[in-house]
Amino acid sequence: MGQYIAPTRDMHFVLHELLHVEEELKQLPKYADIDTNIINQILEEGEKFTAQVLFPLNHSGDREGCHYNKEDQTVTTPNGFKEAYKKYIAAGWPSLSCDPEFGGQGLPMVVNNSFYEMLNSSNLAWSMYPGLSHGAYECIREHGTPELKSLYLPKLVSGEWTGTMCLTESHCGTDLGLLRSKAEPQADGSYHITGSKIFISAGEHDMSQNIVHLVLARLPDAPQGSKGISLFITPKYLPDPDGTLGARNLITCGAIEEKMGIHGNATCQINLDGAKSWLIGSPHKGLQAMFVFMNAARLGVGMQGLGINEIAYQNAVEYAKDRIQSRSLSGIKAPDEAADPIIVHPDVRRMLLTARAYAEGARAFCSYMALQLDKEFNHPDEEVREECADQVALLTPVVKAFITDNAWIATSECLQVFGGHGYIAEWGIEQYVRDARIGMIYEGTNTVQSLDLLGRKILMNNGAKLRKFGEQIQAFLEVNGTDDSMNEFITPLADLAGKVTKLTMEIGMKAFKNRDEVGAAAVPYLRIIGHLVFAYFFARMAKIALAKQDSTDTFYTAKLATIRFYFARLLPETEMLLRQARSGSANLMSLNAKLF
Amino acid sequence: MGQYIAPTRDMHFVLHELLHVEEELKQLPKYADIDTNIINQILEEGEKFTAQVLFPLNHSGDREGCHYNKEDQTVTTPNGFKEAYKKYIAAGWPSLSCDPEFGGQGLPMVVNNSFYEMLNSSNLAWSMYPGLSHGAYECIREHGTPELKSLYLPKLVSGEWTGTMCLTESHCGTDLGLLRSKAEPQADGSYHITGSKIFISAGEHDMSQNIVHLVLARLPDAPQGSKGISLFITPKYLPDPDGTLGARNLITCGAIEEKMGIHGNATCQINLDGAKSWLIGSPHKGLQAMFVFMNAARLGVGMQGLGINEIAYQNAVEYAKDRIQSRSLSGIKAPDEAADPIIVHPDVRRMLLTARAYAEGARAFCSYMALQLDKEFNHPDEEVREECADQVALLTPVVKAFITDNAWIATSECLQVFGGHGYIAEWGIEQYVRDARIGMIYEGTNTVQSLDLLGRKILMNNGAKLRKFGEQIQAFLEVNGTDDSMNEFITPLADLAGKVTKLTMEIGMKAFKNRDEVGAAAVPYLRIIGHLVFAYFFARMAKIALAKQDSTDTFYTAKLATIRFYFARLLPETEMLLRQARSGSANLMSLNAKLF
Repeated sequence: MGQYIAPTRDMHFVLHELLHVEEELKQLPKYADIDTNIINQILEEGEKFTAQVLFPLNHSGDREGCHYNKEDQTVTTPNGFKEAYKKYIAAGWPSLSCDPEFGGQGLPMVVNNSFYEMLNSSNLAWSMYPGLSHGAYECIREHGTPELKSLYLPKLVSGEWTGTMCLTESHCGTDLGLLRSKAEPQADGSYHITGSKIFISAGEHDMSQNIVHLVLARLPDAPQGSKGISLFITPKYLPDPDGTLGARNLITCGAIEEKMGIHGNATCQINLDGAKSWLIGSPHKGLQAMFVFMNAARLGVGMQGLGINEIAYQNAVEYAKDRIQSRSLSGIKAPDEAADPIIVHPDVRRMLLTARAYAEGARAFCSYMALQLDKEFNHPDEEVREECADQVALLTPVVKAFITDNAWIATSECLQVFGGHGYIAEWGIEQYVRDARIGMIYEGTNTVQSLDLLGRKILMNNGAKLRKFGEQIQAFLEVNGTDDSMNEFITPLADLAGKVTKLTMEIGMKAFKNRDEVGAAAVPYLRIIGHLVFAYFFARMAKIALAKQDSTDTFYTAKLATIRFYFARLLPETEMLLRQARSGSANLMSLNAKLF
Repeated sequence: MGQYIAPTRDMHFVLHELLHVEEELKQLPKYADIDTNIINQILEEGEKFTAQVLFPLNHSGDREGCHYNKEDQTVTTPNGFKEAYKKYIAAGWPSLSCDPEFGGQGLPMVVNNSFYEMLNSSNLAWSMYPGLSHGAYECIREHGTPELKSLYLPKLVSGEWTGTMCLTESHCGTDLGLLRSKAEPQADGSYHITGSKIFISAGEHDMSQNIVHLVLARLPDAPQGSKGISLFITPKYLPDPDGTLGARNLITCGAIEEKMGIHGNATCQINLDGAKSWLIGSPHKGLQAMFVFMNAARLGVGMQGLGINEIAYQNAVEYAKDRIQSRSLSGIKAPDEAADPIIVHPDVRRMLLTARAYAEGARAFCSYMALQLDKEFNHPDEEVREECADQVALLTPVVKAFITDNAWIATSECLQVFGGHGYIAEWGIEQYVRDARIGMIYEGTNTVQSLDLLGRKILMNNGAKLRKFGEQIQAFLEVNGTDDSMNEFITPLADLAGKVTKLTMEIGMKAFKNRDEVGAAAVPYLRIIGHLVFAYFFARMAKIALAKQDSTDTFYTAKLATIRFYFARLLPETEMLLRQARSGSANLMSLNAKLF
């Protein structure tokens, strides 16, 4: 049933050689004592935990799925999930990046992030249970009253309680302005919420004592649309002020969904029948309160894409080395065998390297983003904080959409490496394809991400944020432009950067006349920016690897080969994307809807 | 749970306006009396049958799957499948394109083909049961003794018995030369086969009285490798010469596979324990005997891609017209609703049009191929037969790989149109994505197809077959090159045709030095040829539609819009593919296998 070994060597490379995380964290008073040694120890422990505890439950969890028990409206998670969660909290993992004030270990996002890659690789469905707690934690910490904080946060940090986010209703997902759930104020300052939610991940399960739902609903005097939505905390069991669990609240799970993938995670229909709740943040400002941690959540979905991409790659490589079938076109490679291992075939390597390059690019990009988030929230210099915030705002939709799209492509290529066995559940690889598909949808579809990037983050401020990121690339190009050995990377990067500038201006001009031009260009545009970011990080990594290519450490040889593959085979997608992004809206809008 | 209405209007367009099937069939004595009226009547009946009988079982069949009964090693198909099959044979559908000599209706492939599109759209898993019979029928008709023919063919034609193809073993799929199953000659002229087969679609089920397995195995004196494989007929029940069923043969189903999709079809592990069998064709020439109908079978898989692509498109369009969410960027379109239907959004249209264009291109291409097959086997002029055979040989790997790849892309885009609901089984769309994935694998993986195209069909005869097809395109370009209204289609088609010629020569030169250059270029090369074929057929269709665009029939308006979308948004993929195909083998082969 395959294997998973956390790619700690590449994580070390990204964190220490590419990003110089220790030095960077030294600038942040909160994390000034986090050194390389601590980081690597955590990664080592993470490697053990995910390989030994979570990965063995990944395939069985998919096959078994969750069980809904109609009588008492409870959900039983797959065999072993509950016990693994006990080990998870016993080892203190939930508290990794939480505030020491509430029992957390106070580690930076950039370290937590690498651990999350491991969680996502080893068992995505399982990892969504604790993963959703973090959003609830962030929301309450940022917007909760002192009472709510001291009641809920320690329990979320210890992992005794888990969290959810209850946003979607059956008639509204993307367009939350249509939301209908109602909150009635009570004499004691609490609210009673009535309504129905769907697609609530980890909305009901048997892994924790209590579930803390963050719920969007409307107050009686709420304005229509998205400016009339408030955020509430609605616990499954009503806790006493000391945290002891009291009565069962009127929030129940009506059913769980049968899905394409992530079978081990319960996707719940949640009914609120006057459920006792407390307001978080200001009335009608619920969406803003949620958006506080939206960047982190979207980075989290990008990380899920990376995790699934990595595990699919590892298993496809093992298969390709092991499976013998046909002879190499350029002559027999394994004369003692009846056929050559399929890794000798160029196209098998194309498929493997696609997954490998997308994983390595994503690891660099996501780790960089996590570090930017740490700086955004913790750097002493306000100017740096703002600069980081701008970059995070600009690149978050890219991390979410580009990496989850790539994961879909990569997992499918990995499945193909297995031939017929790829289609058979027993071999495990098809699960990764199914699990990968959700990333393109939730936390804002990839189309929504592209509109956020092009319409809001770029065109709304005339490209200022993009120009800033472009300056960073420009500086790198200038420093390395005279280094002949870097030429093969610098030339295509500079070429693409120039084309992006031109394209952005073009679309901006067209959008003045017709806003549909934004929607018509946004999806290919986002992938172009994704490649610009990847090409930039790959060029930076190439510089490091070139300097060490004569060392005995073959890691650098492999890194360079992967980078060269990326520039030769994946970056050329931009040639197609540029044409698509420039092709305008008429080819989409001219057909009358009735004629579809 | 969605809908399916056979696209008969577009089928009429392709068969009558584009391909002039009636005129073409007049040239073939066997089919000289098949006119437009007969063809349209059959399509009309097919539309009813698939909408009323098969489509209602599609989703339930996926959810229920097949059941393996260990005690008696039988397979129970999903609820309703058996009854639908009874209706299918009662209506005479199995005999549609079979020889009247054996009870068939003697209709050409090109008509059967359109009916198969409907079968595949309405219920792919179900359609594989009768679909596999046709391969067995073709094999026996071509290579069987008169006794075997008169015993087996009428039963296969009537549908009372179904067929299978038993090729794959657990250690060999692509590389059949490694095959181990053994056939021992018996005194009565029969053989006893011992071995294990896997991935046998429809290998055991409860829909027909008997199952006729076509089995590959080795005779005792067989040479090693692929030149030592013979073909046998192995019935589940041994029939008397009059067709009455006798003893149960020693061929049994050991298990069925759990798969990513096509759950309604039983994918069987088949054990042969001295199963009584009869040789078909010459000893050791089993692979050649099978390859007789390989072109038709691969066209069949392309048709499956088309069928799945079409049904996904239809359901995504319905959802996009129905679902209201957010407002159009260019102004409110449905002022009476709380939001606009999502079909107003440019990117939703991009996704829909991608599926639509791929379906319409595939329909034209597949129908053309089916007609070429009819001519290859039935044209009185040997020169025409050979020309058609060459085209079929050249384009079969393209039809198989390009269309199944496109179906994967298209079904995934259609899923995305549904947002979160796309991931939920109840909505039905995710099934099409899972069902589509197998097409890229079976009947020769798409990598194998690409090597067949570039290595065998093109480079082995110095591009002669491709040049011939190029002349056909060239003739079209010359006739229409001076028509200004055709310029938007002619220019990119001519441009691509020129690039293909150059690319083919380049790869040919490089392959002289290093055979891995073929494997390194083959997959992008095949997709380039696929686009060349689509661009050619779309240009031809554009010419017809342009001539009728002022008519009141909006079909031509929609056809033109789809074609313009194809040229603007899908054809530019060739810009990427050309770079990939030219990038050479070093970016794939330089990394030592151990460093993956």
